[in-house]
Amino acid sequence: MQRVTNCIIIDNGHLLLLKKPRRGWYAIPGGKMEQGESIKESVVREYREETALTIHDPELAGAFTFSIYENDSLVHEWMMFTFICKTYEGTLTDYCAEGVLKWIPVEHIHDLPMAEGDRKIFEHVLANKSMLYGSFSYTEDFELLNFRLDSSAS
Amino acid sequence: MQRVTNCIIIDNGHLLLLKKPRRGWYAIPGGKMEQGESIKESVVREYREETALTIHDPELAGAFTFSIYENDSLVHEWMMFTFICKTYEGTLTDYCAEGVLKWIPVEHIHDLPMAEGDRKIFEHVLANKSMLYGSFSYTEDFELLNFRLDSSAS
Repeated sequence: MQRVTNCIIIDNGHLLLLKKPRRGWYAIPGGKMEQGESIKESVVREYREETALTIHDPELAGAFTFSIYENDSLVHEWMMFTFICKTYEGTLTDYCAEGVLKWIPVEHIHDLPMAEGDRKIFEHVLANKSMLYGSFSYTEDFELLNFRLDSSAS
Repeated sequence: MQRVTNCIIIDNGHLLLLKKPRRGWYAIPGGKMEQGESIKESVVREYREETALTIHDPELAGAFTFSIYENDSLVHEWMMFTFICKTYEGTLTDYCAEGVLKWIPVEHIHDLPMAEGDRKIFEHVLANKSMLYGSFSYTEDFELLNFRLDSSAS
C-alpha cells in the first residue's frame, strides 16, 4: 500500500504549496514513504528533496485513508500523513520536478483549484490544533465521492 | 501493507492489556485496519470487537513502521497506530479469542514479558504527552534488531 507524507509550512501568514502541472491544482508538498522509514523521517526527507528546505519539528496534523473507485470497484487505496510546521531552514529550490512551488497567503487558499478533499483538510488544519482523522473516496478522475472527517476532542 | 491500530486504556492507575497465548507476551489490544477505514474508526471498531468496550475520544499517541527480516532479507513490513484513551463505556468481555484481557497496575508494566519494542513504546507513551514516531526492525522470531524513536517537540 502506498503511503504519502506531506507538510504544510506556515511562515508569516503564507503557506508553501505545489502547483502541479496536470490539472493546475495546488497540493501540499511531500511524497511517498520508503521502506523502513517512520512517517516523520519520511516527511523530512521528502520535503527536502522537493523543496530543498529542512523542516524542524513537524507535527502530525492529520491521518487519512484514500480509496479510489472505478465504477463500483475499488482500484487503489493509500494513506496520507499530513504534518504542519512553522520552522525550517534552507533556501527554496529554483526547480521542482513535480511542479511549481509557491508561497500563498493563507487568506487566498480557499480560492485555489485543488482536490476537494484537500480543501476540507486545509479548512480544518488551519483552524484547529487537534488531530484530524479521515477517509476519502474518489473516482479515478479525482471526483470526490464521499468522505468522513473526525477531529480529536482535545 | 498490513496496518494495525491499538489503544492503551488508562483507568484508575491500570492499563488494559492482552496476554497472548503463543509466547505469554502482553500486548496492546487492537487489530488490523479494514478497507476504507480511518485509523480512528479502525481503533474504535477493533477495540469493541476484542474487549466489548467502546472507547471515547482516543488520541493518537504513536505511529510506527515495523520491518521483519529473515537473515538480511525484508520479508514483511507493516504499520501500527497506537492510541491512548481515558474514557470508555461497556463491560469487559468474559471471552477474547486473541488471549486473556487483564487490568495491569501501571507500575507493573515494566515487569511483564512483551516485545522489546513495545516496552520502549510504553516507556515513552506513559511518560509523555507528545506524539511518538518510530521504526522497528525485528527478526521473524520477534527479536529486536534495531529501532529509532523520535518524539515531537511540543
